[in-house]
Amino acid sequence: QVDQVKVWAAACANCHGTNGRAEPGMIGLAGRDKNELQQQLLAFKNGQRPATIMHQLSKGYSDEQLAQIAAYFAAQKK
Amino acid sequence: QVDQVKVWAAACANCHGTNGRAEPGMIGLAGRDKNELQQQLLAFKNGQRPATIMHQLSKGYSDEQLAQIAAYFAAQKK
Repeated sequence: QVDQVKVWAAACANCHGTNGRAEPGMIGLAGRDKNELQQQLLAFKNGQRPATIMHQLSKGYSDEQLAQIAAYFAAQKK
Repeated sequence: QVDQVKVWAAACANCHGTNGRAEPGMIGLAGRDKNELQQQLLAFKNGQRPATIMHQLSKGYSDEQLAQIAAYFAAQKK
């Protein structure tokens, strides 16, 4: 049984690096505070936070999925 | 009144170039057949067509929005 959150989070790697360990100059996700990540994802989704594609990407996830994705990256080694 | 389809299509420019006129090596969208673009967007959304982020990005749009985005890029000069 595939770990579904890994499938959702895999899309993020294209810009944010594998497991959210980003290249210099790009926003990293690994090991950051779960609530902070979750709040920002929701802010993107609700149009409160401007973005290039995050506002649109976040609309493809449910709030519950965004919470699981935030927890996934928070648990990754920096 | 902002042309809503332009707002939706603006997200695509980040990878596919302004108005879908892509850099060499990246898939262009400008001036392509509307039905072909629409079918591919739906195939991404329905998981029939593998992708890095298009499968996830397309989930944030309704089928109707995808049809309007396809028409927008089909109408752009190559």
